[in-house]
Amino acid sequence: MKSVPRAQDVANLAQVSQSAVSRTFTPGASVSDDTRRKVLAAAQKLGYRPNALARSLITRRSRIVALVMSYLENQFYPLVIEKLSRKLQAEGYHVLMFISEMDEAADGVLAEILQYQVDGVVMASAMLSESLAQRCSDLGVPVVQFNRISDLRGLARHSASSVTSDNYAGGRLAAKLLVERGYRHIAFLAGLEDSSTSLERERGFVDGLAASGLSVFRRAVGRYRFDGAQEATRELFAQEPPPDAIFAANDHMAIAAMDVLRLELNLEIPRDVGVIGFDDVPEAAWGSYRLTTLRQCVEPMVDATARLLCEQMAAELCPRDVVVPCELIERASIRQRQRG
Amino acid sequence: MKSVPRAQDVANLAQVSQSAVSRTFTPGASVSDDTRRKVLAAAQKLGYRPNALARSLITRRSRIVALVMSYLENQFYPLVIEKLSRKLQAEGYHVLMFISEMDEAADGVLAEILQYQVDGVVMASAMLSESLAQRCSDLGVPVVQFNRISDLRGLARHSASSVTSDNYAGGRLAAKLLVERGYRHIAFLAGLEDSSTSLERERGFVDGLAASGLSVFRRAVGRYRFDGAQEATRELFAQEPPPDAIFAANDHMAIAAMDVLRLELNLEIPRDVGVIGFDDVPEAAWGSYRLTTLRQCVEPMVDATARLLCEQMAAELCPRDVVVPCELIERASIRQRQRG
Repeated sequence: MKSVPRAQDVANLAQVSQSAVSRTFTPGASVSDDTRRKVLAAAQKLGYRPNALARSLITRRSRIVALVMSYLENQFYPLVIEKLSRKLQAEGYHVLMFISEMDEAADGVLAEILQYQVDGVVMASAMLSESLAQRCSDLGVPVVQFNRISDLRGLARHSASSVTSDNYAGGRLAAKLLVERGYRHIAFLAGLEDSSTSLERERGFVDGLAASGLSVFRRAVGRYRFDGAQEATRELFAQEPPPDAIFAANDHMAIAAMDVLRLELNLEIPRDVGVIGFDDVPEAAWGSYRLTTLRQCVEPMVDATARLLCEQMAAELCPRDVVVPCELIERASIRQRQRG
Repeated sequence: MKSVPRAQDVANLAQVSQSAVSRTFTPGASVSDDTRRKVLAAAQKLGYRPNALARSLITRRSRIVALVMSYLENQFYPLVIEKLSRKLQAEGYHVLMFISEMDEAADGVLAEILQYQVDGVVMASAMLSESLAQRCSDLGVPVVQFNRISDLRGLARHSASSVTSDNYAGGRLAAKLLVERGYRHIAFLAGLEDSSTSLERERGFVDGLAASGLSVFRRAVGRYRFDGAQEATRELFAQEPPPDAIFAANDHMAIAAMDVLRLELNLEIPRDVGVIGFDDVPEAAWGSYRLTTLRQCVEPMVDATARLLCEQMAAELCPRDVVVPCELIERASIRQRQRG
């Protein structure tokens, strides 16, 4: 096998110092045009490429964080990619994308993630399995579950932190608000049945209704899909009497529901039906929707994720769970507060 | 400096063969639980991590493709990230995210891109500068400009391919369609003034109107921003007589315009004003908009990008420009065709 050319080989061929080679390939370093040209010509000829990855073998830092996602249909996730990429970039890391299948644990991409010798893993909209957590723990690679969490036991728990919104409190608040505004037949539009986000929001919602002596009036499952939510909304209104409000487990589904309510069922929002979502995606603020929602505070969630990763990449694994409060964003999709 | 532990060191400590160490860290390879446990304990103790990056130094393949973007507000780009990640993942590559500032050339992230010894670069919603193209060419790294293109001259041209929609033809078709449907006072809502997408769509639009003896009735600049487009729409309608149609340089701006037209100016779409967009983002199909638009065919664009990269990563740089036809998606935001 042909040996890999080294900086010294390039220096010899270009008849310059090894330091000149190094400076040519160090962004921002000073080197004359003439030297640069000679070095590049020699590097081209030898097939030499600068050696940042080799450095990572010595420092054992690839400066790569794997981000595992299953889908980007929900507009919340593009925000997360952009903000997390920016944040980690500022810390000298970059995000390597891994797409796993929806509804499946991310083990399909596990092999590949480990191949890249990543310094950390963020799991968002994807399920963390015990075996993936276990392998990362074995290798000392910190994992942050972002938004979605899986129950982990034993050793697997040792590598995995989590950053979530306070989904339970958000669900509870949605119930309280709808009851306050006079809604009584309140339906729940569930996301993926086994996702922690949907489960926790529903748990808070059920408890919030119970605190007012109510229970969930009707329930349908939209699986966090636009068309799934449209179908589920039709289902919710197929029987008499209809619900007078919907709490949707995310905005993406709430928006789908609003279109069905207004355009197919000719119902007026918020008069005939109140709608509350979860996330506060940019589209929730669009004039045609003006959706009242529980905002997931992406900025603090991303900050916490980066902080957890950076701390643990620098030192020992020491998983923590961070819960970020939600914020009520009131727009126009539920009735206004009654005056005195 | 402490030397980096090798597979042989782990094998010695664990009292197993080197092949057992290798199999332990090769996903899918067969190894007994007992051996696996011994190897992992030894690896943990020595701080050994499997050596995929080291392999990349020998093969000179990092299996990383840099994706440079400046923003994800436009819903077209999340689609691109997801589909490109999936496509490259199927070919054994992964996408490393780089966020550059909007409106600026990507030179700010150049240093970092080169540090990762990427096998290829995709520039989307970001400007490729001569210097970045030049450096990639020097290093033999293929670059694909996706959607947006910059004019490159000389050597810089040597590394850069491009994949775009037929923006000119799309603009021309938008003009033809609006004229056919009886609109006569047709405004253009421009994106970023120096982006090839906005310029080419406008050029086709101007030529299309000219073919019917018309010219652009009024023009405003939304800079591909939601709030920018809202402001620009107000501007277009501030003078009498108002336009009777708008061609927006992308859907994101067309949607912003529709909200202003209906909710602020109380105009009916498509009766009072026709609106055409560009992209066919998922939101364009939502019931509240039903936007008629020129679809950018993401799937063939992404396929072409992956093919160009893979060809050139395997062989010599040989840049090509691929132009993918747009497709007219007619919904409800312009008047229907008149019956005979």
